[in-house]
This record gives sequence, C-alpha cells and structure tokens, in this order.
Amino acid sequence: MNKNITLNQAIELINQSNIQPIQSQKVFIHDSVNRILYDNIYAIESSPKFDTSNMDGYAFCFKDLQILHNQGLEIDSINKAGNENECEVKNSKCIKTFTGAKIPKNADTIAIVEQITIKDNRIFLNQDKDLAQYRFIRKAGENYKKGDILITKGTRINPFHIGILAQNNTIFTQVYRKPKIAILTSGDEIAEIGEIKQNDNYIYSSNNHILYAIANALGAQSTIHNIIKDSKQDIKKAIEEALGFSDIVITTGGMSKGDFDFTKEVIKEFGEVIFDSVKIKPGKVVSYINCNNNKHILALPGNPNSSVVSFLLFGRLILSKMFNITTTIPTHKAIITNDIKISDSSRIEFIPATIKLINGRYEVSSIDNRQSYMIDKLNQAMIIVDNKQANKGDLVDIIILDDLLKI
Amino acid sequence: MNKNITLNQAIELINQSNIQPIQSQKVFIHDSVNRILYDNIYAIESSPKFDTSNMDGYAFCFKDLQILHNQGLEIDSINKAGNENECEVKNSKCIKTFTGAKIPKNADTIAIVEQITIKDNRIFLNQDKDLAQYRFIRKAGENYKKGDILITKGTRINPFHIGILAQNNTIFTQVYRKPKIAILTSGDEIAEIGEIKQNDNYIYSSNNHILYAIANALGAQSTIHNIIKDSKQDIKKAIEEALGFSDIVITTGGMSKGDFDFTKEVIKEFGEVIFDSVKIKPGKVVSYINCNNNKHILALPGNPNSSVVSFLLFGRLILSKMFNITTTIPTHKAIITNDIKISDSSRIEFIPATIKLINGRYEVSSIDNRQSYMIDKLNQAMIIVDNKQANKGDLVDIIILDDLLKI
Repeated sequence: MNKNITLNQAIELINQSNIQPIQSQKVFIHDSVNRILYDNIYAIESSPKFDTSNMDGYAFCFKDLQILHNQGLEIDSINKAGNENECEVKNSKCIKTFTGAKIPKNADTIAIVEQITIKDNRIFLNQDKDLAQYRFIRKAGENYKKGDILITKGTRINPFHIGILAQNNTIFTQVYRKPKIAILTSGDEIAEIGEIKQNDNYIYSSNNHILYAIANALGAQSTIHNIIKDSKQDIKKAIEEALGFSDIVITTGGMSKGDFDFTKEVIKEFGEVIFDSVKIKPGKVVSYINCNNNKHILALPGNPNSSVVSFLLFGRLILSKMFNITTTIPTHKAIITNDIKISDSSRIEFIPATIKLINGRYEVSSIDNRQSYMIDKLNQAMIIVDNKQANKGDLVDIIILDDLLKI
Repeated sequence: MNKNITLNQAIELINQSNIQPIQSQKVFIHDSVNRILYDNIYAIESSPKFDTSNMDGYAFCFKDLQILHNQGLEIDSINKAGNENECEVKNSKCIKTFTGAKIPKNADTIAIVEQITIKDNRIFLNQDKDLAQYRFIRKAGENYKKGDILITKGTRINPFHIGILAQNNTIFTQVYRKPKIAILTSGDEIAEIGEIKQNDNYIYSSNNHILYAIANALGAQSTIHNIIKDSKQDIKKAIEEALGFSDIVITTGGMSKGDFDFTKEVIKEFGEVIFDSVKIKPGKVVSYINCNNNKHILALPGNPNSSVVSFLLFGRLILSKMFNITTTIPTHKAIITNDIKISDSSRIEFIPATIKLINGRYEVSSIDNRQSYMIDKLNQAMIIVDNKQANKGDLVDIIILDDLLKI
C-alpha cells in the first residue's frame, strides 16, 4: 500500500490504475454544452457547399471583361441568397448577385455594387481597382471539405461549437454519459441544511453540497445522501449501497486516527487501496480504492477545504480517465503581492488566494487566515507552494479554481 | 445617430444608456451556480459558533498544568464531535476531546494524543513542545462573526460558494432572474437544422443556435424562433411579437445595404437607435436600439463570426447592466507564434486564434483562413489587433473566449 506519497506519485498511480472510459449517449446539441465528445464530428457537406458570393454585386464571366469595359453588360436577372431557381449567366450579360447567393453557372467574377454604374439596365465599371477573377467569391470547400473532421473526439463542447454543429446539420451528438457519483458524508456533528437539532453542538454539512456542485460542473451526475452517523456498520452499508448505483463513491470524514474514524478501515474491504495518504496540504488523509467493474471509491478528509482540494486533484483525474482524456493541472504565473511562509515544506501546500487580472497579467494575494475548515476562503485561486517561502513581487505558480472545474 | 463609431464609444454609449437591473427570484442553492447574487449573504452564526477542538486530544484547564506535570490528570469522560451532552472539565481532570468537538466548559488547553501517555486512566505528558493555552482550539468567531457578509451581492455564484451557503444553512438564494432573450434569424437562404429543401441553395442556420448557447451561458433564458423570410413585414411582425415576451430581442442578418436588407430599416421603428455601426472586424453593421420599458434590440450582422463577436462585445454588456454589474472585456497577454498583418487598421480586428498554456504563460497562434462566415474557426481565443501588424514573438493582447461567457 502506498502511504504518504508525493502528489506526483499519487497522480501517476491513478494514471496507471485500471479506470475505463465509460459508455456514451446521444444528446440534442443544445444539451451537449460541457459534455465530452465521444466520436469525431465529420463535415456532411463542404463549406461552402457551392461557390458563393461574398459581396453584393454583379456576377459575370471574366472573358466578357472587354465587353463590360466597352458597351457594358445587360442585367439579366436577380439572384438573391436562397434563390430557388438555378441561374446561368449568358454571353454579354450579368446577374445581380447578393452576399450569400450561389454564384450563377458560367460566372466567375463579381463586380461589387460600389464599382459600377447602371445605365439602361446595363452595368458599367466606374473603377476596376478591386476587380479580379474569383475575387469576392467563396470557393466551394475553401473552408473545409466534406468528410473533414470538424470537432475531434474528446473535445469538451463549448457554446461556440454549437454553431459548427448546427451549420453541419448535426442535431444530436454522441457524448460520454455522465459518470454517477454518490457523495456520502459521515459525522455525528454534521447536520443537513435545514435540520433542527435539540442542542447546538453541530455544524451544517457543507462538504456534500460543495462536492455535488463541483462534480456536476466537471460533468458528473452526482447524488447526495443522508448524513451517516459515526458507525462502522452504517458507513459500510452506505458505501455498499452507493457502489450499487454509482461509478464513483466519494466519502468525506472518518479518515484520521481518531477512535471514531471508521471510514479509513471500512473502505479497504471494497477493493484495492491504490494509495492512502498524500503529502499535500490541505488534504493528506485521502485514499483511492479501485473496486471491480470500473467502480471507484475516493475517500476524502472531513475538513471542507481538504476534501475539496483532494477531490479537485484526484476526483477530476479519475473523471478525466472515464472521459478518455489525458489531463493535467493547469497553472498560471502570477506576481504575488505579499510574503508567505510555510511551516511544513514536506507537503505541497495550496494556499487560498484572490487574483486580479491587471493589464493582461495576474496579481495574486494569499489569504492570511486560512485553516482547512474555512470553506469561505476557497473560491477563486490557490498559490502552489512547494518550498519554504515566497516573497512579495515573486512570480509564483497559481491554480485558478475555475480551471479545475473543466476536464 | 451614432454611425461608424469606435468600440470604446459604443461601449460608453451602452453604459450611459437606460438599462435597468431586472427583478430577482428565489432559487435552491444547487440551482444557483452561475447565477448573480441579488442580496448580500450574511452569516447567520459565527464560525466556528463555539470554541472547537482542532485535533484529537485531551482538554483541560491551563491552571492545572502543574498537576498534569506531577500526578497527571484523570480522564473524566469522552467528548466526541457532535456530542449531545454538555461537557465540563472539573478540577484536576481532563476530557478526551476529538477534532471538531466543542471545547468543554472550563477547558482552555488541549494536549494532543501524540503528546501524552495514559496510565491508570490518567494522562501524563511525554513531551510539551507544542503545549500552550488555546493552542489547537478554533476560537468561536475566528473565521467570521455572525452578521458578517459572506458573499457580496453581484457575485456570480460558483460551485465553491455552494459550500459557504450550505455551512450557513442558506437553502435558497435571491438571484437576478434570467433575462429573456429572443433570437430571431432572417434570410431566404437559411434553413433550420433538419429541414429538407427542394434545391440545394441554402445553408443551415448556425447563428440562432450559437447565440442561444452563448446567451444561456451568460445567464440568460433564450428562445429561438422560426427563420424569417426576407420580408419587411415578416421581420417587423416577428420583432414586435418577440418584444412582447422578451427583455432583449436579437436579430441576425439584414443589416447591410443590399436590396433585401430590411432589418436595418425596420428596427428604427421600435425605439431610439443608440448606434448603428462600429469600427470592429468582424462586426461593423451592428445596431443597438433602446426601446421603452427596459426592452432592447441588438441587431447583429448575418455572418456567424460577426454576429458572435458583436454579441460578445455588446450583448454581454447589456446583460451585465441588467445584472447591475460593471464589466469589462478581460484580456490576457500572450506570445504570438506567427506574423499577422491587417489590411484595414481603421477597425479593431479580433482574429480567431488557438492558445496553449505553457509553463503558466499563454502562447497564441492566429488562424490563417479566417473569413467571417467561417464559424468553425472561432472557439478558443481571439487576438486583438488595433494596428497594422504583429510579429512572431511579440506580446499581444488576447481574449479567451471562455472569459466572455461569464459576466
């Protein structure tokens, strides 16, 4: 068993662990934002599918240029975008052709409206500076060809992709289904929000709700369950049940050495303990258990910040493997505005911080009062500290928390 | 009327325009992610609400330290987190107290389990290096006090805030309602996805779907409608109807000088035209109309990239005013990997680009083939170019598109 290992070792162990990509499902494109694409999207047609006018003007045949110069070209007809009739330019004639309209048969040149003067239903050039064969024409397939890959599998679909999909007449996408995550919380001192207790010796459960929101942002479908009492049997039963209907079971609390920390022991019965503590702060007492049948347990510490940071580091990684994606922790450089000192440099520390984007660069300030139970301190960024100190003005590595809410 | 104004002038005109904050509504905290907070969230209790043990150990009274040193302290009882009984330390005794448990009455000091040895139900110190009065005790209110502001109004609620809200027993939040945006598309050449036409002279509508996805990401509740034919009457009727049930009506197309560009004319009848073209590329032919009763029309160009960029610049700003938030366009610095040249430096150009985050810094590459109808090029970032060129290796300003999907 891997105890008290480094962050990189823990990441490596998860990467090497048997975590299989999950199944896919079909969703309407509007519902596919933030989902991970299972198959490539191929172009059904070329773009444009036919030569298209890029401007309002008059389409003619370049070999008639001399006629245009001398006696002008007769306007034969009007060809607007979406014209239901096929147009064909005849000798010595032109067709008024609008932006987005299909270029008429035989035409290869556009004189734009700004370049011409009309007399007796004939166009004459008033200037020919921009005139050239194929100018102002979007050539069929110049953007992409039928069969090209438009969006690569493994892409996280964003609102911008919805335009590409619609243009391609793609109504449904095949995406990975949402991994089911059951979030279990235990602790006699934990009350569910809204719960009324006889005495005041309790705190409201925040772990299950914050993990619910984070897991869902990461593309999971998470469920929260009744708070479990500090009982070995109850914890065991809850995990057993949750494994029945979930891909990943998350527990929080019960991971220290105290007399009532049962989770730590119970989880061992459900599979192979890949690791059971990691040199990170907040965090440390976090275990990953690989069960059979692509089911997984991530047992997190009870302190809110510890559970959140460990979930972002390891839960996000497990999810990314289920989505068949290789992911890393995205970091940015930032100038720190205050000195920080670390008491224990044997653990990589993630310090809650606020950031400002000033002239395109990040400025970061650590939060002074930052114990791991203080969940209100963690909502914008973290400074990564893996040596004893950082001084005001130093360029430090930071993680923007929003970045960890994407695979 | 303001024609062909600069981007900054357009932004200033929207900022000065009469756009009122919209109403609020109550939502369950799970549903409040990405919503904008209408009221401050105040702490209902202090955190912690009572002195709490930060470690597993033995709570005693500091004035008994000498007794602890000499004859040890008798273990009177056990006090676990969530203990339903009130505990009180009596003279020369101690109470075993676990992490998260309320500190017993009269106790002010914790000897942690690592520091003590037990003989005959009495604790003895085996080392006193870390022993100090109040050490390992979370003092009541040290995190925040009852009545403190926990989350400021105007905050966009993220998954991390859900933990703070739950800890505060906040079950519902008051957030701005979602502005209703009707997205109208016109053009004889536009087919709805899935539609089967008699000839091939059409393109599938992408504008309405991409704007739908973007507007919803920005916190709106958008609706798409039947594609409108190039008819002045039909366009007018559609806008009229849409204004009846929406806060913002977006139109795309019909904004140029062509014979069938009717939208440009029709929109003038519905309110004050604040501006009707802006020196941006893609974009330019974009109009903002302020109607009565906090209703607004944003008339966008027909080319997909033009409509998207103008919506991100101006629609996002109108929405932010409805959420009572001052917003700017967030830019980052990036090293460009290729040379770019601009033909028309009188317009600020937004060039579709791809980015890589390398060692905490962005590297950006412009996309070569980037006409404004090529919607597939725009999904990651844009380089802002407001002079003639940028050279490989230059530090340029970029916009990360994801940033524009947040207010």
